[in-house]
Amino acid sequence: MDRIFENMPLAEKQVDSTQVFDGRLLHVYKDNIILPNGHKSTREYIKHLGAVAVVAMDDKGRIAVEHQFRYPFMAELLEIPAGKLDYADEDHLEAAKRELREETGIEAEHYEYLGPFYPTCAYSTEVIHLYWATGLSFGKRELDYDESINVEMMDIKKFVTMILDGKVPDGKTQSAVLQVWARMNKKQ
Amino acid sequence: MDRIFENMPLAEKQVDSTQVFDGRLLHVYKDNIILPNGHKSTREYIKHLGAVAVVAMDDKGRIAVEHQFRYPFMAELLEIPAGKLDYADEDHLEAAKRELREETGIEAEHYEYLGPFYPTCAYSTEVIHLYWATGLSFGKRELDYDESINVEMMDIKKFVTMILDGKVPDGKTQSAVLQVWARMNKKQ
Repeated sequence: MDRIFENMPLAEKQVDSTQVFDGRLLHVYKDNIILPNGHKSTREYIKHLGAVAVVAMDDKGRIAVEHQFRYPFMAELLEIPAGKLDYADEDHLEAAKRELREETGIEAEHYEYLGPFYPTCAYSTEVIHLYWATGLSFGKRELDYDESINVEMMDIKKFVTMILDGKVPDGKTQSAVLQVWARMNKKQ
Repeated sequence: MDRIFENMPLAEKQVDSTQVFDGRLLHVYKDNIILPNGHKSTREYIKHLGAVAVVAMDDKGRIAVEHQFRYPFMAELLEIPAGKLDYADEDHLEAAKRELREETGIEAEHYEYLGPFYPTCAYSTEVIHLYWATGLSFGKRELDYDESINVEMMDIKKFVTMILDGKVPDGKTQSAVLQVWARMNKKQ
């Protein structure tokens, strides 16, 4: 570490908090705050239970990739299997196993925790817990009533090239696959 | 590509759209939709102008990293310089140059586009355009009135290790730095 440009106080303080939208998925809040410089401001953000995402890799180095329609983009995206926690204190690993099994039919012998991923730290409390699963077996899946997902196995090296070529815009997928790739290259 | 598990129709159709919250930062919509299986459902999401983020690397392989307080987490996070577009059609590269200069005082000779990053494709239209900037010179910065940011230069190899150790939870930072790291290792 080097060349610290400033040493400003950074912490903001909550004055009060108001829920401004309570939807099926989104729970939006607007808080009055005090900035570190003493001025008043507001912060708008989403409270989110948290989520999990899994890089499921078979013994040939292929990973499970989903084709899923994402409404905000009106487009089909390539993503690793992922899903929301069912409740706030749910065990992340159990949630990862459930989402992988339900969406792809895959069960895995080994799970390695990659770490937390904050998708939008400016306006959501969401944390996605990233996992690397190996030792795969393939069974039947159970999609939720409002999920439509196609799954394929893709070579991780080719998929990394697709990420570097800008063809995989989903953020959690970029980071989780590149983390696995960096760990694989360290181990070699 | 291999082993396609299903071949479901994926596209969802909009029936109507209602704005449910119009804030300073967040613009939230709730749409009625038709699922690919013909059933009705709803989608809640945020409309976002888009943003940029920059891995600014000096000739010693050090990158500019910001310490910033993030209210949804009530915590100080490590992030690469980033910011929202000023208007929908703003040129991404010009926005990247502006945000880097305002937040860090850094100007860069060369910009390489890494690609788009969708932080939360399930519930936001936000796209963060990722850049790799080199040929740095260091000047004065101009923070917005509600921004408090400290900046330091950190060795990219050490920073990648911190990411792999789960110590850098910010998503755009994980992906952009790992993309630069993967490109650097390809070039060697």
